[in-house]
This record gives sequence, structure tokens and C-alpha cells, in this order.
Amino acid sequence: MTVTVQEAAEALRGADHILIFTHRRPDGDTTGCAGALCRGLRAAGKTAYLFPNPDLTPRYAPLNAPLVMPEGFAPGFLVSTDVADTNMLPDSAAGFADKIDLVIDHHRSNPMFGARNLVRPEAGACAEVIYDILMALGVPMTRELAEPLYVGVSTDTGCFKFSNTTVHTHEVAAACLATGLDCGELNRTLFEVKSWRRLQMEQIIIETMEFYHDRKIAVALLRRADLDRVGATEDDLDSISALPRMVEGVQAGLTLTENKNGTVRCSVRTTKEVDASAICRRCGGGGHLRAGGATFPAGVSLDEAKRRVLAAAEDAYNESGL
Amino acid sequence: MTVTVQEAAEALRGADHILIFTHRRPDGDTTGCAGALCRGLRAAGKTAYLFPNPDLTPRYAPLNAPLVMPEGFAPGFLVSTDVADTNMLPDSAAGFADKIDLVIDHHRSNPMFGARNLVRPEAGACAEVIYDILMALGVPMTRELAEPLYVGVSTDTGCFKFSNTTVHTHEVAAACLATGLDCGELNRTLFEVKSWRRLQMEQIIIETMEFYHDRKIAVALLRRADLDRVGATEDDLDSISALPRMVEGVQAGLTLTENKNGTVRCSVRTTKEVDASAICRRCGGGGHLRAGGATFPAGVSLDEAKRRVLAAAEDAYNESGL
Repeated sequence: MTVTVQEAAEALRGADHILIFTHRRPDGDTTGCAGALCRGLRAAGKTAYLFPNPDLTPRYAPLNAPLVMPEGFAPGFLVSTDVADTNMLPDSAAGFADKIDLVIDHHRSNPMFGARNLVRPEAGACAEVIYDILMALGVPMTRELAEPLYVGVSTDTGCFKFSNTTVHTHEVAAACLATGLDCGELNRTLFEVKSWRRLQMEQIIIETMEFYHDRKIAVALLRRADLDRVGATEDDLDSISALPRMVEGVQAGLTLTENKNGTVRCSVRTTKEVDASAICRRCGGGGHLRAGGATFPAGVSLDEAKRRVLAAAEDAYNESGL
Repeated sequence: MTVTVQEAAEALRGADHILIFTHRRPDGDTTGCAGALCRGLRAAGKTAYLFPNPDLTPRYAPLNAPLVMPEGFAPGFLVSTDVADTNMLPDSAAGFADKIDLVIDHHRSNPMFGARNLVRPEAGACAEVIYDILMALGVPMTRELAEPLYVGVSTDTGCFKFSNTTVHTHEVAAACLATGLDCGELNRTLFEVKSWRRLQMEQIIIETMEFYHDRKIAVALLRRADLDRVGATEDDLDSISALPRMVEGVQAGLTLTENKNGTVRCSVRTTKEVDASAICRRCGGGGHLRAGGATFPAGVSLDEAKRRVLAAAEDAYNESGL
């Protein structure tokens, strides 16, 4: 069943020995949610712990590591935070997947896998929902709660930059800063720090960038040899394709990557003037309005793939008359 | 004399034919302040215009250009927004410097050069003060006011990232989003777009970067030949020196630049572990805790300057025992 913030708070008030779950490859929102909820429940007099997440990275470890359950802890009430579906629970939590008492989330696709479900898709970050629950529980807003809540709302909204940022996102951030939290140092580690590998890849992108169609189209090439030299991972590749679109005046940024298996992946990022999926469909791929992709089979060279996707982009331009 | 928000609002309520001034090399805050105040005063039934700012760039032109005073406009009340001192007024406004009726600002150094002065150094952006005045005037918060106010608060706080962001900054942002403003597209143009020149300079920085002291010190070199090839300006050079410090693990980022006149400029950016000014003082310069600089005279080569500043950084480390 679905529940309101008040009903979720009531359920927690009536529970004890609470165990909180985060999602695979935990980000700032799920770790922030779990860290804030656990600390808040303890402030309300409850025994509360986090289920260990084996993927926890050093960046977010301080929010969660001190709260992990001791061996032999027997939970009485299970809560998941920011977990979109049971398959997003860590493998080690599989045995609990059908026993979650309260699901707290903001993913529209959540199948409501808990006994009680509080899913608010309009929230920019799940941490906004956690904040509301803690306030409904009457937990005083402290500096200790402010840090995990702030990490949650800021990381899931690109530091309040993306369109999913809402009025309530800013309200929660304001409540966090009111406790005396210095957001500057925190945001430096969350948003400014980049791995050396990532910076080297940015260098390759800039080095190989070429411009077409009155500088409205930018193409960058990630050759296998360059990627191997840097030691780039799939994760690095995913987010870096936004770079060509950042250049002033560019409306379509195309990034071509030589995959290990010989195929060539093309990632397309566009501004509001161009439909990325229209370009990608012409290359046998697809996607959304501003982001899409296509994969050319092994045997198609990087240069040939570039020629084809450029032609597709030119076609898309000519059709839309831009 | 200094005035409160209420008194500033009263002064504006009793005035008409209001002319608003922005500062030299106008940024998002001064243009946002002037744009919002002018529109708000018009909504309150006043005749209000902006004094033309010859430095207005295309990025911020939409906020101000439509509001510039017509030829022959005879002002009855002069207001400056985000102008730290009279010498920050555009040259063409020099004749008005001692006639400003109301100074609205957030620079601590403001000498209170107006007949009335509302200076709030605790405000992250001057646009927060403008928002308070408009609310005190009873102007309804509309989408039209939201855009310039949002540009003001977001640009002066690095999109809510820097330590100067306050509770009130977030409150004003929340009020802006409540009008239906989509911050995503706006922030893309404000924060994501980079000039091609800037990206090429980032490439040079990454290409030349070397690491010392267990990778805690990073040094990047901007050679004259590279700068001339890219066509880099002083402005470009100022902000780019933050890049070496962004590398994971780096605590002191040193950027050395060959100036046109043969001198070598060293910019130092540090994390909380290292005192930037301590490094720079050893090289005849100075600065703050996290940012400093020093200039080596003509005749000192780039390599020699690098040797000296690296030695200074090593000394600073050894002294602090890090």
C-alpha cells in the first residue's frame, strides 16, 4: 500500500530495531538518505542500523560506515531508501527483498515493492522525502543530520543545477545551512574534484575535437589506443560525452568511442535546438530528445563511423531547417 | 546614512523616474539586480530605466538591454545595484557618481557612497537584497522577476556551491522556482557552456601537468607560445588556475604563466591542508589561505620559476609537517 509522510512517520514511531537498505553502486542520495534517517531515528530513541553496502566508495563512506549493523543484529523493521526496485538491492540483501516494511523513494518506476510505500516522483532527491519524515517525527534538525541530507539533495540535482531541482529542494538545503553547515568545502569534494584519468580523457576529447556545420556540430574521437593508455573505464566514458556540447555555440556534440570488441559507439548530446534521437535513429540507434546513442558493428572503422554520424547530423539539420 | 530594507523600500515608494546603475564588466548579479529592480518598480507603477552599461555581454544582455533608458530621459532618483564603489561605475556614469540616492550592495568594502546605503555583506548575492526590497514594496513575485533574481543569486554563489551561499540564498531561489522557472536550461547556459578558447587552455593545463610530493602538488605551465596560439586573455588566465587543484589528491595546485612582458606569474590554489599565502610569500608574493600569487621578474625563466615555487611548496609542507 502507499502511505503519506505522516503514515510513514507513524510506522517508524511504532517500530524498533530498524535496518536501512541503500541501493547498488550507492550514490550521494541513497547514502545521504540512509545516513540521515538512521541518525534521526537514533535521535528519536530508536535502535537503528544500516545494512552493509559492499559497493560503498570512500567519497560517501563517512556518511554510512559508522552506522553499519553489528554482526548478529536482529532487525525488527526494514526500510529501503532511494531503492528503485528489489533488483537494485545489493546481492547480499537478496534475502530481504520481499520483506521490506517501508519503501522510501522518488523513482517514478518504483513497483511499490514494500509493505508500505512512500514514493514521491516529484522530489528532486529522495533526501527531500527523508527530511519530511524526520520533521514529522519531531526530530530536531541538527548539524549531524544536515550533512547527509545536504549531500543527498545536492548530488541528485547537480548542486541545484538540473531541471529536477524544486522549491522543496532549496527549502531542504536552506534548513541544512541553518544548522551552520559550511557547504563550500563539502561541495568542493563532491563536485570539483576529478580523477586524473578523467582529466586526461577530457584532454583527449578537446585535442580531437573538430567542428562542422558553422561550428554547431562538434565531433570528438576516443581511440582505443588513447583509452588503453589512460586506463579509462565504462563509467568514465558514460559521462564524458557531454563535453563537446559544452563548447559555446555547439548544438550537437558527437563522441565516437572505439570499443574493446571492435564496435564503435557514438554518443550524441544536443541542446534544445536539435533532436538527438533523430540523429541516432539514422545510425541504427535511438535515445531521448537531448541524449542518444548508436553502435556501429565491428568492421566499421572510426573514420567511417564519423562520416556516417556526421551525415546523419547534417540530415537532421537540413530536415529541421536550422 | 545607512538604511534598512523597509527604509529603502519607502524611499523608492516616494520616488519616480528612477535610473538604475550596474558595475563595470557587469556579471550576473549586477545585471540580475538591475533587471529585477527595474521590472519590479515598473510593476509598482513607477517609471524606471537602466543606465546603459557599455560592457554588457551577450550572455546577460536579455536581462538588461530592453530596459535601457531612452535618450533624453531625465532621472529623478538614482540607484546603484551591486556597485562596490564609485570607481566601479562605467566611465560614462562618472557624472552621477556623487549623486546616487540609494546604494544597494553586499560588498563589505563599500564606502557608503550614496545618500542612503543598504549594504548587506552577509548576503551571498546582492540579488537577495533586491528580492527583500521588492517584497517590502509588495510587488508580486512573477516569472518575469524570477529570471533576473535567479541569475543573480546563482551566478554569485557558483550555483549555490560556494561557502558564501546562505539560508536566504536558497530561500530566494525557492521563491524563483515557485513561479515556474525551469532552472535547468538557464543553468546550462550560465555554468556549462565554455568558450573554445577556454577549453583549449584547459587542454594545455592538463597536458603540461606534473605531480610532486606524493602527488599532493600539481604544477601546470602556460607557455607564451601556447597562449598566443589560443589567443588567451587575462580574464581566461585568472580563473583557469583552479584546475590543477581539482585533481583528486592534490592539495596545492601551482600554475605558471609566461606573461607578455617577460615576467612569470605563479598562481597558487590550495585545499584546507595547505596555506597558499605561505608558499607565495616565499616567492615574493602573497595572498589568502587558499589562493595566492607571486610574479618572478623578467629574466627568470619558466623552468627556474617552476623550480623556485616547487621548492617553496616543499618548504611549506615540511614546515607544516604534512
